[in-house]
Amino acid sequence: MIIEIPLNEFGERIKKVQRVMQRENLDSLLVFSNEAEPYYVRYFADYWPAFETTAVMIPKSGDPALLIGPEAGTFARSRSKIPSVLSLADFRESSQPDYPGAKLTTWNDVFDQFPTNRLGLAGFHMFPHTIFENMKNALGEKEVVDADYAVREVMLIKTAAEIACLRESARISELGFKAVVENIKPGMTEVQVVSLATAAILDAGAEAVGYPLWCCSGPNSTQAISRPSLRKIQKGEFIHVQIGAKVSGYSTSVSRPIVLGKATEDMRRFMQMGCDAENLTIELMRAGTPASEVAQKVHGYIKERGYGDTILYGPAHGCGQMECEWPFVETNSTFVLKENMTFHADMFLANKEMGFRFEDCIVIRDGAPAEELSNYKREVIVI
Amino acid sequence: MIIEIPLNEFGERIKKVQRVMQRENLDSLLVFSNEAEPYYVRYFADYWPAFETTAVMIPKSGDPALLIGPEAGTFARSRSKIPSVLSLADFRESSQPDYPGAKLTTWNDVFDQFPTNRLGLAGFHMFPHTIFENMKNALGEKEVVDADYAVREVMLIKTAAEIACLRESARISELGFKAVVENIKPGMTEVQVVSLATAAILDAGAEAVGYPLWCCSGPNSTQAISRPSLRKIQKGEFIHVQIGAKVSGYSTSVSRPIVLGKATEDMRRFMQMGCDAENLTIELMRAGTPASEVAQKVHGYIKERGYGDTILYGPAHGCGQMECEWPFVETNSTFVLKENMTFHADMFLANKEMGFRFEDCIVIRDGAPAEELSNYKREVIVI
Repeated sequence: MIIEIPLNEFGERIKKVQRVMQRENLDSLLVFSNEAEPYYVRYFADYWPAFETTAVMIPKSGDPALLIGPEAGTFARSRSKIPSVLSLADFRESSQPDYPGAKLTTWNDVFDQFPTNRLGLAGFHMFPHTIFENMKNALGEKEVVDADYAVREVMLIKTAAEIACLRESARISELGFKAVVENIKPGMTEVQVVSLATAAILDAGAEAVGYPLWCCSGPNSTQAISRPSLRKIQKGEFIHVQIGAKVSGYSTSVSRPIVLGKATEDMRRFMQMGCDAENLTIELMRAGTPASEVAQKVHGYIKERGYGDTILYGPAHGCGQMECEWPFVETNSTFVLKENMTFHADMFLANKEMGFRFEDCIVIRDGAPAEELSNYKREVIVI
Repeated sequence: MIIEIPLNEFGERIKKVQRVMQRENLDSLLVFSNEAEPYYVRYFADYWPAFETTAVMIPKSGDPALLIGPEAGTFARSRSKIPSVLSLADFRESSQPDYPGAKLTTWNDVFDQFPTNRLGLAGFHMFPHTIFENMKNALGEKEVVDADYAVREVMLIKTAAEIACLRESARISELGFKAVVENIKPGMTEVQVVSLATAAILDAGAEAVGYPLWCCSGPNSTQAISRPSLRKIQKGEFIHVQIGAKVSGYSTSVSRPIVLGKATEDMRRFMQMGCDAENLTIELMRAGTPASEVAQKVHGYIKERGYGDTILYGPAHGCGQMECEWPFVETNSTFVLKENMTFHADMFLANKEMGFRFEDCIVIRDGAPAEELSNYKREVIVI
């Protein structure tokens, strides 16, 4: 059985954001996504682009339209939960093929169909400047405002169907991680380690990897974000592996350090402290707790144990469609945790020689500990 | 042995683009890339981002700098062929973590280091509007112009090292396709077919897939761009599979239709005509030939045979780091083919019921047929 979001929930999402638009006096909301960050459009339309970019145009009331580029017609229509699909040149590939003879919708056509005095723009921080200018030419003096907040508000508390997708994603991510633990061998490249997890994830029912997975070995382990290289992993080395499966658009992440051989006492103490800090993060994250309090306590714990200079961020961030989504649990956060928010407890720590991450997806509960969607081998793994 | 671009070639690329900048009166060139389209930055720095975005700042003379977000420090430094690496808040993830306490470079710092009266911007059509505005605030009244042309000119003719990377990419892509042909079975999902190719590619020495690979089955085969779904492929169905490996940043693509069982006479005639049109495209693409002439002849051939309404674009496009790069071989193209340009001959055709693609990477030769980097089973494959 495929775990997915029921059709009616897509309609409810549109209605929810339209209520925010009415409150905020937005006539239309343009929600933008690209291949690397498809989440806003997928949330409303279930379509996620490749090569091209895309957007959903949502009016204050009435039916939305999906905007795509010239090549994605049959692909987008096969996926979109929004029946109206319009092709615009601006959503073509950035290398800009001409498509001579193609009949395309213009921004003037779009704003004729969606009369707009005040436009909200979500996916604001990835919206291309050229598209912005072309759209402004059609809009004239009318106002365009950053409206990420409108979508963030609607996406923040997850439904049972969304949590079911995340739960399935975490189950499959753990299978990917298990394939690594059971088959990793010195002499493999970092890429080949990722191959083990990727094949396991895709074979187990994920629709894709949730993000570009990685394995960092030896000196590369200090990398908070990375990509696997063709470096061969070696006996006695320290490795960190980052695995996530995408299920109906929802992505979790499981990360653990692995020692291939013997860890020194210093390494083991550092990693065990990180594991304890990850457990403390999960323990502290309950409905009603200010996010900043969690961050301050966890960072306080790490500092007290003498590892303050290994902190880069964190200790947690929102998740849902993207492995990393707003909001961020940071020492200066201003929000309070609520039931059915979902986060990755994300304990990345690094000194100059080595780094590692413990990461798991959790669901915030009221008056109870968070539900841990993954917990496979949350320990210092020695192989 | 890892096939890669020698270090000195990265320096030569900077020098080449600086000569274009001097000719075009550009004081600085800012070259932007994101996770989905990393090619411009990778071309100059060998770094390609995940989660964050990135840019290279190149002065008219002197040394460039790599600009990254707050989390990629050790990752970027481990990859970058440009020693100077600066972290800016604007290149963080689009969900905008705060990184309280992080010490970051500002745009004012950047323009202090790279004094600029006229800035060229490459990767123009993906450059985010917010970053553009922040940069303009630091630049004041100084001019910013689209300078994709400057990078395109430098990237257009491939070196021997670049062609070696593409050749290796095509070799591995064919291995991925072979893994599909030898193991595909009715009952597999489209995703599982992609899993076969992905594991084969990563195990054979690719650093990654070249783009999001896909398999389209049955009614999905009409999709020119796609992503694999959890639809199970069925006996007697028609499938098209699109496979590409990334080698040191360079990506090719091999695409073929596969019939799982018996094709009707109509299907077979349509596909064979497409295969013949692909071969004709390759045959016509030689140094000295205007690109538009190739497109007109190939589209003329398809129209004469009664399939004119199955054309969406093409019949070829540039390639290198991205599977699809400028320039495009279209009926309105204005350039002439030159030796050591590289293209994908890309024959995608679809009617309302079915579609397919034949795709192969070729190197343009002078006075000789193009070198075909892939040709594995360029035929209607029946399994």
